[in-house]
Amino acid sequence: MTVSTTGLVLALAGGVGGAKLALGLSRILPPERLAIVVNTGDDERFHGLHVSPDLDTMTYTLSGLYNPETGWGIDGDSFETLLMLNRLGADTWFNLGSRDFAMHIRRTELLAQGSSLSQITSQLTASLGIEHAIVPMSDQPVRTVLETDEGTLSMQEYFVKRRAEPVVQSISYVGAADAQPSPGFASALAAASAIIICPSNPFLSVAPILAIPGVRDAIAQHRAPRIAVSPIVGGMAVRGPAGKIMQELGADVSAVGVAQEYREICNVLVLDSQDEELADAVGAEGVAAAVMPTIMQTDEDKVQLAEMVLALAADLEDRK
Amino acid sequence: MTVSTTGLVLALAGGVGGAKLALGLSRILPPERLAIVVNTGDDERFHGLHVSPDLDTMTYTLSGLYNPETGWGIDGDSFETLLMLNRLGADTWFNLGSRDFAMHIRRTELLAQGSSLSQITSQLTASLGIEHAIVPMSDQPVRTVLETDEGTLSMQEYFVKRRAEPVVQSISYVGAADAQPSPGFASALAAASAIIICPSNPFLSVAPILAIPGVRDAIAQHRAPRIAVSPIVGGMAVRGPAGKIMQELGADVSAVGVAQEYREICNVLVLDSQDEELADAVGAEGVAAAVMPTIMQTDEDKVQLAEMVLALAADLEDRK
Repeated sequence: MTVSTTGLVLALAGGVGGAKLALGLSRILPPERLAIVVNTGDDERFHGLHVSPDLDTMTYTLSGLYNPETGWGIDGDSFETLLMLNRLGADTWFNLGSRDFAMHIRRTELLAQGSSLSQITSQLTASLGIEHAIVPMSDQPVRTVLETDEGTLSMQEYFVKRRAEPVVQSISYVGAADAQPSPGFASALAAASAIIICPSNPFLSVAPILAIPGVRDAIAQHRAPRIAVSPIVGGMAVRGPAGKIMQELGADVSAVGVAQEYREICNVLVLDSQDEELADAVGAEGVAAAVMPTIMQTDEDKVQLAEMVLALAADLEDRK
Repeated sequence: MTVSTTGLVLALAGGVGGAKLALGLSRILPPERLAIVVNTGDDERFHGLHVSPDLDTMTYTLSGLYNPETGWGIDGDSFETLLMLNRLGADTWFNLGSRDFAMHIRRTELLAQGSSLSQITSQLTASLGIEHAIVPMSDQPVRTVLETDEGTLSMQEYFVKRRAEPVVQSISYVGAADAQPSPGFASALAAASAIIICPSNPFLSVAPILAIPGVRDAIAQHRAPRIAVSPIVGGMAVRGPAGKIMQELGADVSAVGVAQEYREICNVLVLDSQDEELADAVGAEGVAAAVMPTIMQTDEDKVQLAEMVLALAADLEDRK
């Protein structure tokens, strides 16, 4: 396999799974060749502070600060601030570490001063030594809202407070109609010579990005190779509630179901080796299947998968 | 000595020295007999958060959380949040501990929701188990601003960032003209059967309280015994820059200078035993002098001084 040595790679990502592949990509591609566009549909205010969980997971992962046990938060962080907030009467169901709080405090202050989320993300990631571009999908608020058998829940209420237990009936992306792709996203979309949809939750991480007006169409009509990595392996989500939600929404909880979701926006779906027998069914959905090991535990796994995905993109480009 | 067993005691206080005497008073008086009114002229926004240094020192002291080494902050607190803010590019000259941050985050959130500083202080102190009323001097912003040989500085810029080194030329209390005493302060002022001016900085802690329209006159004309404890002992401030500022502003750095500042608003000035020879000079300023040990190191010292001050108030009341 060869990896293309020119052109911009646009990666679309949500939380932990997306950050793993993005880390792999960042170890291979120089900064000017990678734009990592991150879901902000999970953003929420906690204690008056603007928290961007997916941007933070990506930032902590690429800066090396991340906690390998949890995938989120900062390794070795304490919870002193949160425990004290709890004593002071605050509702503290959302875990925020003491060092993590600094990120939310700083972001909130800079937002209040009039900077955009893109500008702030660029500044914060640079201050942590990250050279690659981590780009919020939009500078306008888009909020993923779930209608469930327990009522309307925000993404974090559903996922963290209610531990993804409620039955999901429908999902909406409030504000998306009035949002625009962030400047970094728009320019990456225009310039991309490959688009990679990371193994993130199709409904909670990728769909909010696609809900921004113009984005789905731009990707559907894009001439660059577009490769998605299935977050569903062996009939269940590698991590998180993607499988449960797909089932509740009537989708097939498999790489085939993912192919059905993504068929308009990708040429190739990468399936894990253990799902090899689904390759034909994926192909029948109009999406080419590529089979390779996709479970990323070590950093070597992340780099290896990134290499294979980039090689696949180069190969598709060559065949055009 | 006897301590009066009825009536409300109003204590006016600034930071560490004031909090020590207030702690002593709170150990003697039941909650319904004490109102501790605290300077908010030092309040400042740091990292977008509303910090009330004197309210916090009082709160930490009365809740037992305070750091006995520094007098400010929470004992055993870490500085993880602040160090991370520094990494993220924030200017972190003002020390804020990780647990301390919770106080500022919560206060800021509740202010943004429309609660008054009085309501918030009442809620936060209650959540830490404090039964006595800690009352901000005003719910409107009053900011102590110093004109110095290095330019205009806020109280914290002068005191913390510039370590009280600039030469003070004048002090103003910006916003005071448009401020009102907080509801708790106004009602305590109306009901007080004794007023105690704690050993706080006359210019930086007590003067901002007196600058609120009506307050100086109400205290000057008050019929209750009014007792101040000198923060200047042996020709220097027990703590902080009070002595240096008095000198720079042309005042006598002694209990006599304090008497000159306070003569309109107190009947008795408590001098430390080591200043016994100043009693006559204080008396010549029209303020009765009472001599007793005023240096508070242990909690026993704080209770003992509070007992003696309350006995003095009872004695003055009896003589009327």
